[in-house]
Amino acid sequence: MSDYPIDHKDQAATWFVTLRDRICAAFEQLEDDLAGTEHAALPASRFERQEWHRPDENSESGYGGGGVMSVLRGRVFEKVGVNVSTVHGTFSPEFRKQIPGAADTGHFWASGISLVAHMRSPLVPAVHMNTRHIATSHAWFGGGADLTPMYPELHEQDASDFHAALRGACDRFDADYYQRFKKWCDDYFYLPHRKEPRGVGGIFFDTLNTGDWAKDFGFTQAVGEAFLAIYPEIVRRHMNKSWTPEQRRHQLIRRGRYVEFNLLYDRGTTFGLKTGGNTDAILMSMPPEVIWP
Amino acid sequence: MSDYPIDHKDQAATWFVTLRDRICAAFEQLEDDLAGTEHAALPASRFERQEWHRPDENSESGYGGGGVMSVLRGRVFEKVGVNVSTVHGTFSPEFRKQIPGAADTGHFWASGISLVAHMRSPLVPAVHMNTRHIATSHAWFGGGADLTPMYPELHEQDASDFHAALRGACDRFDADYYQRFKKWCDDYFYLPHRKEPRGVGGIFFDTLNTGDWAKDFGFTQAVGEAFLAIYPEIVRRHMNKSWTPEQRRHQLIRRGRYVEFNLLYDRGTTFGLKTGGNTDAILMSMPPEVIWP
Repeated sequence: MSDYPIDHKDQAATWFVTLRDRICAAFEQLEDDLAGTEHAALPASRFERQEWHRPDENSESGYGGGGVMSVLRGRVFEKVGVNVSTVHGTFSPEFRKQIPGAADTGHFWASGISLVAHMRSPLVPAVHMNTRHIATSHAWFGGGADLTPMYPELHEQDASDFHAALRGACDRFDADYYQRFKKWCDDYFYLPHRKEPRGVGGIFFDTLNTGDWAKDFGFTQAVGEAFLAIYPEIVRRHMNKSWTPEQRRHQLIRRGRYVEFNLLYDRGTTFGLKTGGNTDAILMSMPPEVIWP
Repeated sequence: MSDYPIDHKDQAATWFVTLRDRICAAFEQLEDDLAGTEHAALPASRFERQEWHRPDENSESGYGGGGVMSVLRGRVFEKVGVNVSTVHGTFSPEFRKQIPGAADTGHFWASGISLVAHMRSPLVPAVHMNTRHIATSHAWFGGGADLTPMYPELHEQDASDFHAALRGACDRFDADYYQRFKKWCDDYFYLPHRKEPRGVGGIFFDTLNTGDWAKDFGFTQAVGEAFLAIYPEIVRRHMNKSWTPEQRRHQLIRRGRYVEFNLLYDRGTTFGLKTGGNTDAILMSMPPEVIWP
């Protein structure tokens, strides 16, 4: 890690913060633009930010970086969390073997953005997006985005457009990326105990290092740009439609699947919680209200 | 397993069903006896039962036992599930090493009762109880019970009485049981990512085989009897008190901790879901309504 170019770290960490700011602005614009549904009478909401710091008992300074949680609880977005963090430190011996390039010293540096949006309307799909850059003695990018409509059969156009946006980002960098990363997403976001996919998919990639840092960083940026281009558009298509109590109930049940996936299978969540990550930031992805009838 | 006395299996499985019937009757009586709170205007509810069968592709008959879920959604019990099951079959090779006595043939037989109650009132503690008898080439008992008040500081008497009842069951069989099994419970029902215990504890035991089957079975029965003696009494103390919306909100937040524990850490839940157990029966423990604000 010590010889990993500092400007690479800076560029990546700066990008994640810039992307966060642009996403938050786009989401606040959607809050402003709501015109239909009974919730239009509520005030448009704004993100609130909270900083956190990561203590690191293994480092000399005792300081291991930190992050900023941005949360909006609003009239379009019932709860959306956008987290950025840049952390560094030393993995405990039992985790070193699980992380590429960490076996020797255990040193790591990681920066990323992570977002989960749970919508008020059952007619607006929930979404997840996350990209990250990690450096040990290796360095790589990872991330992805996936869409979770409550009624997949009513969102074929949305699913198609969401995939097309991500495919556009992929195709600019490698003709194989989209098929590979779409399949990775389908395989990853699957609930075996329900025999159900989490949603209508998207892309997922990890340990991406082609040997061309600028290309890999460019691709990671393109995934963020694609998300920003398509998701607010999908929200806008549906946010002014009114819904029934039965549709709301269905949404709250479907959110249970989101909880089950994140706590049972999601590696980021379980790894984060079991390695002393920031619990509030990690569990920002939990839906605001859920039922298991 | 083949030389394990068939009458031991029968006695244990029969006991779990008998205990289920007595618990369901006691809970329905509580539903009948509600006199206070706005929910007293609702009708007293009854358990509904649903049978399930366990397919076993490894067995000649294709049949691997099954169980009965009993669920009551009522005015005192917002959602309570009482499951009994008796299953048998062959563990897949990757699981054999994790189960005592299953390494050679992988054969197992298991019977048990499992109960989780989520109450309408935030002033009535939630509860979990479960006892089981398992046979591979070894045979043992396991189980326990733990109490989860939403406001532990208001339930010192309840916690004390709950522990006293379980201690009474323990002390009749072994002077060391209570301290050992109470500690096991405290260690087990702990959420490291929250640095919080799940509730006010109780007892937890596993792989219990003293060499005296009648004694171990007697103790397992005594745990069930102790639960039946004390939990309905605790419910009765508080069920007619009215509560505030703030208390209800607090309850829904605390239920999130229950979900987090069960999906992140509970071995029965995660093992069951990952080994093809009955998803509906296993996730019967999920609270009916939860918020992560």
